[in-house]
Amino acid sequence: MTPEEITRVLQQVRRGKLSVGGALERLRILPYEDLGYAKIDHHRSLRQGFPEVVFARGKDPAHVEGIVRRMLLNRHNVLVTRGDAELFERVRNLHKTAKFHKLCGAITFRHDRKIRGKGKIVVVCAGTSDIPVAEEALVTADIMGNRVEPLYDVGVAGIHRLLGESRHLMEARIIICVAGMEGALPSVVAGLVEKPVIAVPTSVGYGASFSGLAPLLGMLNSCASGLTVVNIDNGFGAGYAASQINALASE
Amino acid sequence: MTPEEITRVLQQVRRGKLSVGGALERLRILPYEDLGYAKIDHHRSLRQGFPEVVFARGKDPAHVEGIVRRMLLNRHNVLVTRGDAELFERVRNLHKTAKFHKLCGAITFRHDRKIRGKGKIVVVCAGTSDIPVAEEALVTADIMGNRVEPLYDVGVAGIHRLLGESRHLMEARIIICVAGMEGALPSVVAGLVEKPVIAVPTSVGYGASFSGLAPLLGMLNSCASGLTVVNIDNGFGAGYAASQINALASE
Amino acid sequence: MTPEEITRVLQQVRRGKLSVGGALERLRILPYEDLGYAKIDHHRSLRQGFPEVVFARGKDPAHVEGIVRRMLLNRHNVLVTRGDAELFERVRNLHKTAKFHKLCGAITFRHDRKIRGKGKIVVVCAGTSDIPVAEEALVTADIMGNRVEPLYDVGVAGIHRLLGESRHLMEARIIICVAGMEGALPSVVAGLVEKPVIAVPTSVGYGASFSGLAPLLGMLNSCASGLTVVNIDNGFGAGYAASQINALASE
Amino acid sequence: MTPEEITRVLQQVRRGKLSVGGALERLRILPYEDLGYAKIDHHRSLRQGFPEVVFARGKDPAHVEGIVRRMLLNRHNVLVTRGDAELFERVRNLHKTAKFHKLCGAITFRHDRKIRGKGKIVVVCAGTSDIPVAEEALVTADIMGNRVEPLYDVGVAGIHRLLGESRHLMEARIIICVAGMEGALPSVVAGLVEKPVIAVPTSVGYGASFSGLAPLLGMLNSCASGLTVVNIDNGFGAGYAASQINALASE
Amino acid sequence: MTPEEITRVLQQVRRGKLSVGGALERLRILPYEDLGYAKIDHHRSLRQGFPEVVFARGKDPAHVEGIVRRMLLNRHNVLVTRGDAELFERVRNLHKTAKFHKLCGAITFRHDRKIRGKGKIVVVCAGTSDIPVAEEALVTADIMGNRVEPLYDVGVAGIHRLLGESRHLMEARIIICVAGMEGALPSVVAGLVEKPVIAVPTSVGYGASFSGLAPLLGMLNSCASGLTVVNIDNGFGAGYAASQINALASE
Amino acid sequence: MTPEEITRVLQQVRRGKLSVGGALERLRILPYEDLGYAKIDHHRSLRQGFPEVVFARGKDPAHVEGIVRRMLLNRHNVLVTRGDAELFERVRNLHKTAKFHKLCGAITFRHDRKIRGKGKIVVVCAGTSDIPVAEEALVTADIMGNRVEPLYDVGVAGIHRLLGESRHLMEARIIICVAGMEGALPSVVAGLVEKPVIAVPTSVGYGASFSGLAPLLGMLNSCASGLTVVNIDNGFGAGYAASQINALASE
Amino acid sequence: MTPEEITRVLQQVRRGKLSVGGALERLRILPYEDLGYAKIDHHRSLRQGFPEVVFARGKDPAHVEGIVRRMLLNRHNVLVTRGDAELFERVRNLHKTAKFHKLCGAITFRHDRKIRGKGKIVVVCAGTSDIPVAEEALVTADIMGNRVEPLYDVGVAGIHRLLGESRHLMEARIIICVAGMEGALPSVVAGLVEKPVIAVPTSVGYGASFSGLAPLLGMLNSCASGLTVVNIDNGFGAGYAASQINALASE
Amino acid sequence: MTPEEITRVLQQVRRGKLSVGGALERLRILPYEDLGYAKIDHHRSLRQGFPEVVFARGKDPAHVEGIVRRMLLNRHNVLVTRGDAELFERVRNLHKTAKFHKLCGAITFRHDRKIRGKGKIVVVCAGTSDIPVAEEALVTADIMGNRVEPLYDVGVAGIHRLLGESRHLMEARIIICVAGMEGALPSVVAGLVEKPVIAVPTSVGYGASFSGLAPLLGMLNSCASGLTVVNIDNGFGAGYAASQINALASE
Repeated sequence: MTPEEITRVLQQVRRGKLSVGGALERLRILPYEDLGYAKIDHHRSLRQGFPEVVFARGKDPAHVEGIVRRMLLNRHNVLVTRGDAELFERVRNLHKTAKFHKLCGAITFRHDRKIRGKGKIVVVCAGTSDIPVAEEALVTADIMGNRVEPLYDVGVAGIHRLLGESRHLMEARIIICVAGMEGALPSVVAGLVEKPVIAVPTSVGYGASFSGLAPLLGMLNSCASGLTVVNIDNGFGAGYAASQINALASE
Repeated sequence: MTPEEITRVLQQVRRGKLSVGGALERLRILPYEDLGYAKIDHHRSLRQGFPEVVFARGKDPAHVEGIVRRMLLNRHNVLVTRGDAELFERVRNLHKTAKFHKLCGAITFRHDRKIRGKGKIVVVCAGTSDIPVAEEALVTADIMGNRVEPLYDVGVAGIHRLLGESRHLMEARIIICVAGMEGALPSVVAGLVEKPVIAVPTSVGYGASFSGLAPLLGMLNSCASGLTVVNIDNGFGAGYAASQINALASE
Repeated sequence: MTPEEITRVLQQVRRGKLSVGGALERLRILPYEDLGYAKIDHHRSLRQGFPEVVFARGKDPAHVEGIVRRMLLNRHNVLVTRGDAELFERVRNLHKTAKFHKLCGAITFRHDRKIRGKGKIVVVCAGTSDIPVAEEALVTADIMGNRVEPLYDVGVAGIHRLLGESRHLMEARIIICVAGMEGALPSVVAGLVEKPVIAVPTSVGYGASFSGLAPLLGMLNSCASGLTVVNIDNGFGAGYAASQINALASE
Repeated sequence: MTPEEITRVLQQVRRGKLSVGGALERLRILPYEDLGYAKIDHHRSLRQGFPEVVFARGKDPAHVEGIVRRMLLNRHNVLVTRGDAELFERVRNLHKTAKFHKLCGAITFRHDRKIRGKGKIVVVCAGTSDIPVAEEALVTADIMGNRVEPLYDVGVAGIHRLLGESRHLMEARIIICVAGMEGALPSVVAGLVEKPVIAVPTSVGYGASFSGLAPLLGMLNSCASGLTVVNIDNGFGAGYAASQINALASE
Repeated sequence: MTPEEITRVLQQVRRGKLSVGGALERLRILPYEDLGYAKIDHHRSLRQGFPEVVFARGKDPAHVEGIVRRMLLNRHNVLVTRGDAELFERVRNLHKTAKFHKLCGAITFRHDRKIRGKGKIVVVCAGTSDIPVAEEALVTADIMGNRVEPLYDVGVAGIHRLLGESRHLMEARIIICVAGMEGALPSVVAGLVEKPVIAVPTSVGYGASFSGLAPLLGMLNSCASGLTVVNIDNGFGAGYAASQINALASE
Repeated sequence: MTPEEITRVLQQVRRGKLSVGGALERLRILPYEDLGYAKIDHHRSLRQGFPEVVFARGKDPAHVEGIVRRMLLNRHNVLVTRGDAELFERVRNLHKTAKFHKLCGAITFRHDRKIRGKGKIVVVCAGTSDIPVAEEALVTADIMGNRVEPLYDVGVAGIHRLLGESRHLMEARIIICVAGMEGALPSVVAGLVEKPVIAVPTSVGYGASFSGLAPLLGMLNSCASGLTVVNIDNGFGAGYAASQINALASE
Repeated sequence: MTPEEITRVLQQVRRGKLSVGGALERLRILPYEDLGYAKIDHHRSLRQGFPEVVFARGKDPAHVEGIVRRMLLNRHNVLVTRGDAELFERVRNLHKTAKFHKLCGAITFRHDRKIRGKGKIVVVCAGTSDIPVAEEALVTADIMGNRVEPLYDVGVAGIHRLLGESRHLMEARIIICVAGMEGALPSVVAGLVEKPVIAVPTSVGYGASFSGLAPLLGMLNSCASGLTVVNIDNGFGAGYAASQINALASE
Repeated sequence: MTPEEITRVLQQVRRGKLSVGGALERLRILPYEDLGYAKIDHHRSLRQGFPEVVFARGKDPAHVEGIVRRMLLNRHNVLVTRGDAELFERVRNLHKTAKFHKLCGAITFRHDRKIRGKGKIVVVCAGTSDIPVAEEALVTADIMGNRVEPLYDVGVAGIHRLLGESRHLMEARIIICVAGMEGALPSVVAGLVEKPVIAVPTSVGYGASFSGLAPLLGMLNSCASGLTVVNIDNGFGAGYAASQINALASE
């Protein structure tokens, strides 16, 4: 709440147009709802048409169902990440738009199909094993109201594959770049196009990959200016960040 | 180079409007210049008014001078990062716009003062020791043609200081958030505003900070959606990425 | 044993009021009991009404049962941590107060329900996935004779949820603060209230969380003065430490 | 600010006893002062007689002087940590109570010598090389209004030295335990006395100490229940936490 | 070289068909036997009555059986480490002395029960969870011809338990000290007795134990002079080293 | 594509011998084929008789089958690494040369049995547990057209076993040296023979091996000049690199 | 064994005072010379014309001088790595071919200028800061009798610079690829040419580079088949390995 | 103190042969002396003729002098480790036997030159840069009353140098084995001789040595049975442990 807003509330109280109790209510800052096992924040989606999001892994399926059920009441788009087929069976009847994205385990409920982002978000990945993370980014950006396009299996060891598809990079407004192993792809991509590139290291690899540490460090040390990085395997975070930027572009 | 561009070149060859040698020249892709000890890439600034950048630390001062001298011939803005007062003495006479940014060691040469970015980039930092990194981000975003504003010393242990200044966050289009120690500031800021937040961990701290590892891991694991992260102490990278996003917004 | 106590024993020997054998017995320092596979220390609970504690994970269920059986003979409260439903079935008939705390796997036997701590211990946690660790802290502080209160799912990315519940923090005498991911919650909480805050990092998260390393380092580097930290996922340790402080406060 | 306090402010506005501007001022939460290069938080010391604290290392001496000068105007106790003789020369004339604590580099200014804590805080350290960190804890607890006592050079390899001094441990209300190398001292101390023990790992050692990582991990994994830990070399943090607990005890 | 080949060489010497020098030449390269999937080294046991050893974990049970079968032909003692009940069923009929040591998974075959070491090797461990590693050390030292004695569950958090049993430490010639968690026990033990102490860190613990890294670093940084350390969970290595020292003592 | 090749294409266009479309096609650099879930690169095998390679672990068996099926159409040798018996059942009927290499999980299809490398590649390994990685190197070098020879179980703790087999090392042209635990074997081997030695650390070991980190660091720090290293457990990479060197030697 | 001793043995053979077999026996252990503070191994250079090498850093300059002086007596090429201008002043008069390679600190003495390697070794580096390491590789390969060529400042963020120089890569027989930061260059290079590529990570970078850990892990996890890696900053090792391969090629 | 000893003291009290005060004195366990800045433990040297030891690095030279001065009063041997020439100048006049060991910085004062150990301790090191650590081990074992012998510069890359000196290894009773870089020497040595081998990793090396982590991990994972390890660069610890074993052997 800004000082201006507080001033307005206070003036209404002074003028008798708002009771002390009513003012108190408004000053309790931002809306959230308490389910006992979780506090749902309806605020974000209220403002920007953003979906409500549940991270399913490690959560009790009954809790996930309860949270989704409550979210759907507000007719927001809902995104469940890191779910599985079993969870989908449990929630698919909650709404007719329920959809299971098998490659990354995401489940979506989509009331609102409006495109809000101005440009296209292209999700590039280095190898076929990186696809689950790339898909999570794609599904996230999609349900947040963006045009999206995949460009998969274009790792740097065969640089011609990437160069052969560079037209797709040129058409992007924002690029999400997913890579495991040495994580070099984002550096090359960011060197080819002068656009925001969000890098996602994956845990794909073995041995000295140390579960994604190798590509994470590689991306953080990129010699390409302006690259930004999210957590290992965090396709959702990259999709979300790209959507924020694209939303900005379209204002 | 896109297939369309290659086609155009080939058609000119076919029609005899371009010699084979001339076509070869064009197909050698992107322009750079070889100084012997460095290959300068004039391409980026040609396209977007972006500055040419030299990372001075660890480089021979004579080489830095040589590179800057050559860059200035193209009348681009030039940004030298991680320099010092001694280096500034050496290069200050190369151009009348030379300026030393003492807090972060940057040196700038500025021919072009046009504002290109649409919105304001706010650089927030947690403690006074984080200011050098914050300044590097600020100077970078500034010379790349953005309106910038600092908001310093608003760490999370005194959350009221941050909330008291939240108006400044609201006015930002993009936020750069610089923090050492536990690196919690970006999570809180990204929870307050629904805008792109670029997090910069710093090596400020001691003991289990392990030279910035602590805030780096913290920022990568942020519970706030959509945060992106750059390397430890990499103010330049954050300023550059924010400029790319702001440039995008203004297209 | 203090020199004063030794002196007293020696004087009794000198005066013939205590045999050499009896004195030797007393000088064998502190009481413990040898079950062959474990040495039970009855000392602590003898002094302060503290429970006897068994860490069940990795132990042979028969051994756990044997230890609990022996402990119950002394009519102390008994706390078994990191157990499971199967272990509970095995020991539930040992005493009618047996109770299984499903969320964290603890099993309690409670003869003594006296409240010993002066104030209330509030256990705060950042996300729903942190609840098992928070519950372990809560159950521990509870069986050690404290008034306890949970305040869950108030992570820093939605700072308003935390601020909206700050009244509960104000009422606490000691706060246990449980968080995974970036582990920023304790810094914010310790900045809001001037009371002892014990931080518990959890292994909740993935990728660069490195099984809880990220929040652990974050908490150790907190910019909030006076925060202390326990091991990753160590809800028991936090509950125990908070009880010690609360016991102190009530002397 | 609690809802009760907000209600009170609102009622005064309603009754015309407080102007909108005045109410706004009160609702701007907590007081801090902006020096340009730093925001000083006068809040904590206002409430509890706690000192204002400056971490000097890495700060411009002129800035430290400016901050201290402003703090002294409020007649609070001031604690400067990680300073040196040169800094002391610069600030010693700011107030007649200025004192340099050579062993740990702390500088104190002490208007208020009231003892607020109920019991005694004993600072134990393992080896002579750990003394600088132990002293920082001691000086901090001292200026925060506690009775303090050092017990140095009682490492576990000569357990008799520690047992020979156990009387001092018995007299403590809270124990701060400082150790480098393997960091085993806190486990033994916490096993001897049933009181809050705050462990401070130090960077004393070489080789596989990895700058204090070894004792830090050791203390976090202590088999002694209820031990809490602060950052490597963070004597200040331990002294502060112990003071908070002692203040609590004396309420 | 197989034993059969050695025999043949010796027979030729006996019959005067090979000179002593020539035989020496042939015997110069030490004997080992090639089973195809493994080369067995019969040399060590030939010299000192040491057992032949097989590390079973990760090996094909059929291969382990084959190796053991061949070793038994030489009537040496055989020690199989890290086996399990299933493997024992497979090999128990190979020789009537077969014995399964359930606590640590070792399997022994013992032809030779001679005591070779002069003094007693005492194996101390900190907690009941460390017993498997301690048993591996005990079984190893036992089959290598030493008098051995266990002293378990005497961790440093209850230092009185250790002091109460110090008589056992005094009677030892060499001490093996096994501990997980913070790994402080060896430092205390080595401070109590002036004898060789071999420290074994275990992977017992969780969180910041990082699978035994914490006690390993602790032991390497011990403030007690003369402690030596083996790999995490390497009870066998400690038992072997202690036997070598005891064998030396008895020469 | 070299400038010379581009020139040739351009000249054909100029002379009307090649259409613009045809030239464009040629300038699209290097051939690859898009299966949707993967882009197959036929380039390498086209040039050097090298096999096409699929890394099976973590891939959908149906995708592996699809890729292999397509590769076989080109009548290249095909190498599937990190497969298992189940995958072999699925693909064994795709071609009559299908062969399952049980020790390392590789599957090969071999149309071309020509020996291309000039000398012999010897694969040395330290212990029996390192054999799976050694076999992967052996199978790779074999299918790439080299004479290969294994020399297993010759670890440095029994240096006589290695010296006894040194004749085999002398006959090698290139040596691949596989070792887990301390990873010392390559240093000793590279000290014995003045030939290229490629070191492969394995994850064999436990405790402070940290999944192969120990031998990896050991090999990188070898005191033997000229040793080069590949990733932990990367037998394929070593076999491939050795083949490249041997191919070079035979040119 | 000193050369003098070898001579004596040979003379005895000549004079019939020692049998060939006896001489062989004496010569079996390879020759080295004992200077007291070092044992010089003249063997390698005897066989292949390889230089004798001294690693100067951390050594007493007087010792380095003594070692070089003795080596020069054998008229071998001598390579001193990691020296400095001061050391060069000390040894420059030892032989007229003394040369100081300022960029990497190497000092060479060159009696023998014969080219032994068949092909050209190209040393590629990513940035100007990587040049010292690249030069060490170049100087090493040069004095070991190879044709060498540098190709510097062709990092992956400007992939066109690398592609523009690909002709030089095509002409190489072996490529040494030096890169700091994310270390992606070797992957791209190895994807462009089907030749042995030896990757050298450098400690160039800051923050999450962790002194070269980032490029080291990146190179070990390269998606390009057949890449091999040497230690961080180990230009010498790469030059040596490349020479061994080139020597092989020329046999 | 054993129960027997306590019994004896108690009986004397009972019989009036010992006063309560006198008994108390005896029961205060072990003797140490308090200098204010340090507690000196005279116990060890009282029993076994072991020297008193001061670790000088990081200590105030005046304190070191004070400690040494006090120790010399007891006419024990004194060993100061990690000193330097300046410290030696300060203490050389304290006793005529003062000696500075330049290679490792140790200072010794030697009243007692008796040989107590039965056999010879051989200190082996891999390279000339490891000599300072090896010397610290040698000087320590020497002043503790052992016959010692150095065997330096016999690293594994030239295995013939080690084999050529194996006679010296055979004559040893205990071997201390010092190595940096990959730390492979102890494995080879322990494979050659069936005697106690104490391994000392050194911080010699660069890059992926990570200040001695590489050889430390290598030694802990040695495939040679019975190797024990001390901290990085801890020559003193190895010398001390070897002396304890040798003292045992001579009992």
